[in-house]
Amino acid sequence: MNHFTHHISQQPAVRDHRFAGHHILSVSQFDRDALAYVFTVAEEYRQAGREISVQRPLLGYILANLFYEPSTRTSSSFLAAMERLGGSVIPINEVRYSSVSKGESLPDTIRTLEAYADVIVLRHYEKGSAALAAQYARKPVINAGDGAGEHPTQALLDLFTILQERGQIDGLTITMLGDLKYGRTVHSLAQLAALFDVKINYVAPETLRMPGELIPQIRVPQSEHTDLEAVLAETDVLYVTRIQKERFTDEAAYASVKDSYVITPETLSRAKADMVLMHPFPRVGEISIEVDTDPRAAYFRQIEYGMYVRMALLAMVLGQA
Amino acid sequence: MNHFTHHISQQPAVRDHRFAGHHILSVSQFDRDALAYVFTVAEEYRQAGREISVQRPLLGYILANLFYEPSTRTSSSFLAAMERLGGSVIPINEVRYSSVSKGESLPDTIRTLEAYADVIVLRHYEKGSAALAAQYARKPVINAGDGAGEHPTQALLDLFTILQERGQIDGLTITMLGDLKYGRTVHSLAQLAALFDVKINYVAPETLRMPGELIPQIRVPQSEHTDLEAVLAETDVLYVTRIQKERFTDEAAYASVKDSYVITPETLSRAKADMVLMHPFPRVGEISIEVDTDPRAAYFRQIEYGMYVRMALLAMVLGQA
Amino acid sequence: MNHFTHHISQQPAVRDHRFAGHHILSVSQFDRDALAYVFTVAEEYRQAGREISVQRPLLGYILANLFYEPSTRTSSSFLAAMERLGGSVIPINEVRYSSVSKGESLPDTIRTLEAYADVIVLRHYEKGSAALAAQYARKPVINAGDGAGEHPTQALLDLFTILQERGQIDGLTITMLGDLKYGRTVHSLAQLAALFDVKINYVAPETLRMPGELIPQIRVPQSEHTDLEAVLAETDVLYVTRIQKERFTDEAAYASVKDSYVITPETLSRAKADMVLMHPFPRVGEISIEVDTDPRAAYFRQIEYGMYVRMALLAMVLGQA
Repeated sequence: MNHFTHHISQQPAVRDHRFAGHHILSVSQFDRDALAYVFTVAEEYRQAGREISVQRPLLGYILANLFYEPSTRTSSSFLAAMERLGGSVIPINEVRYSSVSKGESLPDTIRTLEAYADVIVLRHYEKGSAALAAQYARKPVINAGDGAGEHPTQALLDLFTILQERGQIDGLTITMLGDLKYGRTVHSLAQLAALFDVKINYVAPETLRMPGELIPQIRVPQSEHTDLEAVLAETDVLYVTRIQKERFTDEAAYASVKDSYVITPETLSRAKADMVLMHPFPRVGEISIEVDTDPRAAYFRQIEYGMYVRMALLAMVLGQA
Repeated sequence: MNHFTHHISQQPAVRDHRFAGHHILSVSQFDRDALAYVFTVAEEYRQAGREISVQRPLLGYILANLFYEPSTRTSSSFLAAMERLGGSVIPINEVRYSSVSKGESLPDTIRTLEAYADVIVLRHYEKGSAALAAQYARKPVINAGDGAGEHPTQALLDLFTILQERGQIDGLTITMLGDLKYGRTVHSLAQLAALFDVKINYVAPETLRMPGELIPQIRVPQSEHTDLEAVLAETDVLYVTRIQKERFTDEAAYASVKDSYVITPETLSRAKADMVLMHPFPRVGEISIEVDTDPRAAYFRQIEYGMYVRMALLAMVLGQA
Repeated sequence: MNHFTHHISQQPAVRDHRFAGHHILSVSQFDRDALAYVFTVAEEYRQAGREISVQRPLLGYILANLFYEPSTRTSSSFLAAMERLGGSVIPINEVRYSSVSKGESLPDTIRTLEAYADVIVLRHYEKGSAALAAQYARKPVINAGDGAGEHPTQALLDLFTILQERGQIDGLTITMLGDLKYGRTVHSLAQLAALFDVKINYVAPETLRMPGELIPQIRVPQSEHTDLEAVLAETDVLYVTRIQKERFTDEAAYASVKDSYVITPETLSRAKADMVLMHPFPRVGEISIEVDTDPRAAYFRQIEYGMYVRMALLAMVLGQA
């Protein structure tokens, strides 16, 4: 055990059995001790590199990677995570091709797949579908995003990224920028970050503000802004989100805010030298590509960190970490 | 070797080489000795659990899983079966994406895939396509359903399920319910079950009766009914099938029969205490979900049994069982 | 090391490190020594058969198999190649399902996938896309066809097939038939074959002639014809290509040339007894199926040889061969 997570938990990161055989549905299942354990395992896998693939701790285990909604990034991340640990994958990306087109219910699909697989990763367009699946499943279900609901593994990898980039989380000022109304990733991240001594700034256009009902649930100092400049200088972590066109019903409303918050090298010139710039990806212009070579641009490293976090989660729910 | 199949064959289940290197196209290829061997191997794999994945008897073998027609259940079953035995899979679910869209013939596709793979599983929308593929293939072809033709692995897993649930097949009364005209699974199952001392009842609406030409080929006592009540009390195995909307050209004809045969807890209250309730899935209402918790509901176990049967078949045609 | 490639290079085929960690974008990267090494490794893998799958030299390596354009043949070939060497694959055939539909750029997709994978195979509909991907990638990119650009692995497998079938390449007369204007495979093959002492005949309808600007770049004797008969008798290798309907904007233009060049048993009766008949596949009638049983028909062996060449390339760019 390394000391990578000593800032997160006073406990030495000992094997945490609470996730073996259990579902991962929500960030609310995690406290600082649980995070410390996830991140310790993830860091071990990162350091092991290809060696862990040779050890194959998940040999003989099968993941059903069930995506009702397209997401190459997330599905590939879980697929690679499982394969790197020596496990196998049933990839189901094509809902049009599945029995769903014959009218099958989600519970029936879940109970079918758990006959073949040992763990199910579920991305679904409907809020609450992961909980519904978990209600019927005898095998662990991992929520990979359920519509406007949660995306807990994204929040975990976001926090892991901050820890990797800054060495600790306590004491940081985190600014979230963009679509804070529809963006489930920022909702999940804000809830999880609130386990730490952080300050959170929300910067969004009026129509895309953080939902009012969420703010009281997040028990850390928070402030809302419409202009990044107000908080840029104090920001330690700038978390930029996509303005998701598919969330709008109105083309004009989309166009009006689309370019409001674009990060350029010029923006970064007014930011802290050790600021961490993150984005859940894909981006469609919110961060200009000129920024990519700036050492503060952490979003490609963030993608790789995500794979290690998902490796840890898969191994944990299967009782192998 | 266990004694799991001693009711099926007087022979001790010795290694049966007749399938090594051969195609599996039709239930007519199986006699009781062959069934005993398939089921013995399937049961060994079931009992071995994850251990067989560690032994990896099919390491280095590749399955081309070629589905021209969508079927998440069957394709995932074969995929998991191959992976559990340590083999690899080329999954081809997207015919739109294949060379087929460039006008390639089935024989050319088969001869292409056998250059890469050691065994081919084929699901096709056209009757006779599996036999056509087999005519050209130098590697074993397993028929995973050819249109209105056969679906032999489904019939094998159905029989394996009955054996698992009841310990023997001789002496049972099997009732098939629903669409018996278009449902190739019941056709294949009836033919295979007729190797045993069984009685078969067919319960179907007038428009969806068992095809008249099939009945004389099935040399066991059979009787036809339109009402389940006439035979429910004597039934040992109730095999319910989906009314496949896609087989109808007429929406009204579909609507008129759709709900005619729905199994509810109330139905089961008049059935034998040890009756086995099966369904090839997906269901679209033929069995109400309230029935799922009844111990007689065997359809989810049936799905898992199917994977073991397919493991056995793959290992057998590859000469590894 | 066998002596399979002694006709290609005077050098003994020693381990060639020039591809380890590098991209494979163009046939112009290969000289005779490099070809000798690729073909030596491919031949070793061919001879090793299933043994190499048990040794698993690429265990723990992951291939991202990224196909923006459908090609079951090529994607399955790379997938099987990776799996036969013990590696794993992230298969991405469904661009509609990828983040691309959310407007992501190719560089962002590449940088995402290289976070998960060790090597990327890219098929794209746009010329230059492989070079663009390589510009951003830190992991090796293998060009599996970039629109009207190149298809280097096809040219390599074509040449490997000629070597396998004839034992050497120098001294042969190669005739290319069909669509020589739009067929990138013939462009790549002609360039690569020109490293040898060969004569090349081009036989095409007037509207589909070899592009005039390519001919001076290919420094071997070449001649153009519209009729196969003029050169059939002297031909050692007859390379037939598909008239790709999708390259035409005009249905009538397609129909007028479609059947101009069809190889039948009658054609072969006037060809050399040891001629090698090749086709990059899929075919849509350019070679009649009656020809398939002629020993000169090498196109199905060509497909299998392709897998060994791709195994060699994957192992080489990963520094494992």
